[in-house]
Amino acid sequence: MTPNKKPQSRRPYSRPAAPRRDGFARQASEATTLPTAANKLRIIPLGGLEEVGKNMTAFEYGNDIVIVDMGLMFPNEDMPGVDYVVPDVTYLQKKAKNIRGLLITHGHLDHIGAIPYLIEKIGMPPVFATKLTAGLMNQRLAEFGLEKRTRVTEFHPDDKLNLGVFSVSFFRVTHSIPDCVGIAIKTPLGTIVHTGDFKVDHTPVDQQPMEFHKISQLGHEGVLLLLSESTNAWKDGYSISEKTIGKNILNIVEQAPGRVVIATFASLISRIQQIVNAAVLTGRKLSVSGRSVEQNLELAVRLGYIKMPKDTYVSINKVDNYPDNKVIILATGSQGQDNSSLSRMSRGEHKHVKIRKGDLVVISSSPIPGNERAVQTLMDALFRAGAMVNYNRDLDIHTSGHGYRKDLELMLALVKPKYFIPIHGQRYMLEEHKLLAKAMGVFPENIFVMQNGAVLEIDKHGATISKTSVPAGYVMVDGLGVGDIGNVVLRDRKVMAEDGMVVVLVKIDDKTNKLVGEPDIITRGFIYVKSSDRLLFETKQKIRHTIIAATSKTMTDKMEDWNNIRGLLRDDLSDFFFKETERRPMILPVIIKV
Amino acid sequence: MTPNKKPQSRRPYSRPAAPRRDGFARQASEATTLPTAANKLRIIPLGGLEEVGKNMTAFEYGNDIVIVDMGLMFPNEDMPGVDYVVPDVTYLQKKAKNIRGLLITHGHLDHIGAIPYLIEKIGMPPVFATKLTAGLMNQRLAEFGLEKRTRVTEFHPDDKLNLGVFSVSFFRVTHSIPDCVGIAIKTPLGTIVHTGDFKVDHTPVDQQPMEFHKISQLGHEGVLLLLSESTNAWKDGYSISEKTIGKNILNIVEQAPGRVVIATFASLISRIQQIVNAAVLTGRKLSVSGRSVEQNLELAVRLGYIKMPKDTYVSINKVDNYPDNKVIILATGSQGQDNSSLSRMSRGEHKHVKIRKGDLVVISSSPIPGNERAVQTLMDALFRAGAMVNYNRDLDIHTSGHGYRKDLELMLALVKPKYFIPIHGQRYMLEEHKLLAKAMGVFPENIFVMQNGAVLEIDKHGATISKTSVPAGYVMVDGLGVGDIGNVVLRDRKVMAEDGMVVVLVKIDDKTNKLVGEPDIITRGFIYVKSSDRLLFETKQKIRHTIIAATSKTMTDKMEDWNNIRGLLRDDLSDFFFKETERRPMILPVIIKV
Repeated sequence: MTPNKKPQSRRPYSRPAAPRRDGFARQASEATTLPTAANKLRIIPLGGLEEVGKNMTAFEYGNDIVIVDMGLMFPNEDMPGVDYVVPDVTYLQKKAKNIRGLLITHGHLDHIGAIPYLIEKIGMPPVFATKLTAGLMNQRLAEFGLEKRTRVTEFHPDDKLNLGVFSVSFFRVTHSIPDCVGIAIKTPLGTIVHTGDFKVDHTPVDQQPMEFHKISQLGHEGVLLLLSESTNAWKDGYSISEKTIGKNILNIVEQAPGRVVIATFASLISRIQQIVNAAVLTGRKLSVSGRSVEQNLELAVRLGYIKMPKDTYVSINKVDNYPDNKVIILATGSQGQDNSSLSRMSRGEHKHVKIRKGDLVVISSSPIPGNERAVQTLMDALFRAGAMVNYNRDLDIHTSGHGYRKDLELMLALVKPKYFIPIHGQRYMLEEHKLLAKAMGVFPENIFVMQNGAVLEIDKHGATISKTSVPAGYVMVDGLGVGDIGNVVLRDRKVMAEDGMVVVLVKIDDKTNKLVGEPDIITRGFIYVKSSDRLLFETKQKIRHTIIAATSKTMTDKMEDWNNIRGLLRDDLSDFFFKETERRPMILPVIIKV
Repeated sequence: MTPNKKPQSRRPYSRPAAPRRDGFARQASEATTLPTAANKLRIIPLGGLEEVGKNMTAFEYGNDIVIVDMGLMFPNEDMPGVDYVVPDVTYLQKKAKNIRGLLITHGHLDHIGAIPYLIEKIGMPPVFATKLTAGLMNQRLAEFGLEKRTRVTEFHPDDKLNLGVFSVSFFRVTHSIPDCVGIAIKTPLGTIVHTGDFKVDHTPVDQQPMEFHKISQLGHEGVLLLLSESTNAWKDGYSISEKTIGKNILNIVEQAPGRVVIATFASLISRIQQIVNAAVLTGRKLSVSGRSVEQNLELAVRLGYIKMPKDTYVSINKVDNYPDNKVIILATGSQGQDNSSLSRMSRGEHKHVKIRKGDLVVISSSPIPGNERAVQTLMDALFRAGAMVNYNRDLDIHTSGHGYRKDLELMLALVKPKYFIPIHGQRYMLEEHKLLAKAMGVFPENIFVMQNGAVLEIDKHGATISKTSVPAGYVMVDGLGVGDIGNVVLRDRKVMAEDGMVVVLVKIDDKTNKLVGEPDIITRGFIYVKSSDRLLFETKQKIRHTIIAATSKTMTDKMEDWNNIRGLLRDDLSDFFFKETERRPMILPVIIKV
């Protein structure tokens, strides 16, 4: 992943291929647009359902649309080479002129990360965000040269916005980053509440508690529809307060005899504040390594969201000027990413910090599903280098930013919605949230476990899922290409990753249709060529036989014949290779007329 | 992975490439053999250290060697296309005539799985195993046509073996499969105890408790060296008894209104027994889907390790003859593997069982690190198909077969070894086990956290890690090839998986050195060709420029010149592609003289 991409300055070489669809069939038919419907409210989730990432929901009434969030998702192991996945905005492209605003709940990448890739496609609508969120968003827009052209308006959680027919207000929620809001959207049919990401943290690090009074006032006045996040709907009880984590980290740092290296997500601004606090309280200097955490720390300090005495910070290249027990190093790489600061430190490849005996490494995060093995590899490397590693070993040093069941119950109890859509999570999380809402008294027929692209329509008669859905597949970002990688390219990548590929070059005399010289074979990722003389020799014989057998027949339509022969070569060699190796490389026969 | 591999019947096409080394430097030098040392004991772990899988340890004294276990490991995400990883046995190959026996602790693949791939290489030494272990091993040997040629001797845990200078006895341990043993090896320098895999389960499903009397007798007589497994050395307390899981599963089945589908590992014979019990106690029929679990159930019933009334079992194609609430279906696929029975059931692609509303699916396992995302995908598909899914939600329905800290402490307390090697686990597990042993009173200088291939030498003066290590890298199995996939092939696979590849064909007039016709471009996995006309057009121009510029210079040594031109083409196109796409495909220039 190259962070400094500036796609807007480049000519787009590729027309977008058809966006990739998820693996399941939908009952509804699909349309790229829907006719304007008066007196009808449409809720269209374009991302974040049956997945963790790329959160985005559109709300449409008549000729007015507002959007909440526009996030990215990290690719799974089925998408080799893909950098990110972003939502499909085909539906919104066709209605760009109706979009009154993009409302952002908070500054995490799964809520803001797709903006630079998609905002132009939907006609550069105005974007609304709180101060820190706007700061983080502008940082990314700047990397794409888009910060000047994007109309970003900062709002305070007490502000109200009128966006077409919608009147929008906000309430603070607690999460793992400051300045998070939930959103209340007043529509002609009633009020919609969107929680954003939240956990109930009564002792938040930034001392800005959840605005329960606003939420309960909304509930008191009556809420038509609640969309609430579901990440931890399968976890019993309450989430642990971020403050508890801070105390435990302080405790660990106090007892550490030497250097302390702490790795966490760069996006956990509240965690970073507590690491700063631990440095201050133990009289240690704080040094930072890793681009994302450096950027976020700088931004958060500048905007006043992280408080740090000036003399606490030292640049990473000066960290060796201080005694080991006077230093905390904050680093990226808590997920075991190969090129992150912490991984490089563990392998002795970091320019300024090499892990050594006496170091204590604190991994203050939990692995994102799929990263478990990489984290284990990292921990092994750290131990091997002589460090002690603390990873939730005795004390909790990480907590989720997402509420557990008790938190979600409280939200449902305060909002008392008529309709409910669980959002933000895998299908099983959504289903667990549905069970919870049922138990809390929401009528089962009023709970909609939706898929991305499904359309919920509400009018005065009730709410139904529309028979027609809108496109909401995966749009993949690979390098400068957004949406140009489709199923075919991914399938080819996977075939070559599994068994490699073989190019077969055959020269044919244009007049006689006879083989000229030896066939040539080029192979990569299939076999170790230097020790496969016999296989290559027999492969050439095989090619020769296939060609001779095929060309000895009468050839009527030359073009078609040669295509057939290429197909024959592919089939014969595929069988031959499988018999000999039980591998199925990609085979590319090339016939050259000379 | 094709299970019916018969490599011994095939001609080996490839000489093994140099075995892949792990990513870290060793201080010791490496030698493929070590001179015979009289009066010295060598302990040589060849697998299972700093990894979970491919367990194997060799013990050498003078001219006698015994080996404990010979397991395989599943590849990580850095090894696309690789089926398994097996230990490097170079050291043992050179001393094949000294090998007195291969002792197997239990029948799991990480302890027996490499035998069919390696036993011939080390001269077919006699293999010793308990009855169920031998049954599982023979099943695999048969798939390779090796079962007749391998000398497998069954032993009872009370038996004693004399193998060269070693005298070997056994003690039963409890794990997740019956018939597991730990091994005591009497050597001229003292007794070595190898625990195998174990947890302390006082209520084992097969009612064969751990033989504490034997273990404590060994401890009482004095143990020179303990090798004890470390998988859960980072988990506090005791592991849960398998019996508890059985009760919870019964409880869940009793309350299920319709069909119950239970997925677990085929290797968890004790779990399968309890699922059989649940069927019997609730008057349900048991049906089975998935090759590995069918095989293992058949074998375990035949050998008497699973007790099942005859009329409990119904074949999967008859399962629809019974009412939904009279059926349990035992299936493979608890790790979310794409082609497993449960995944196919969830997608409606299974011939006999399609998941539908009313089904309860019980996932009685936990994800192996790296499989978390696949399991989530599976759970989503099950919920989408209408099932309820139980995955350790309210009651424990899975427990590890590996002891927690309290179990490991008990082992150390009973054995009271002089020297200690933590085995079976990632480095961080080994280090945690070391801390535990220190706390239990083993002298720190007598604890050896080793790497595969390191050699611990013990004589009457003491124990030291030898300066010379032996080869112990990854030997990869891909299709029929064992060890023929090395770094080069894997690197190429990874490059093509990330960004695809481009073949450039250039025809050159042999006499004039001029380009003939258009360059041809074949690409896979790089771009979507049909929408990349402009990129391809500019690529051809680029090729033409490079060729013309290069061939216009005086060409002295033709062969070398053309190699240089190929290199130029690669460099120019690589830069060009990166500038245009930020991708770096593999580029293969082919120059054809016509």
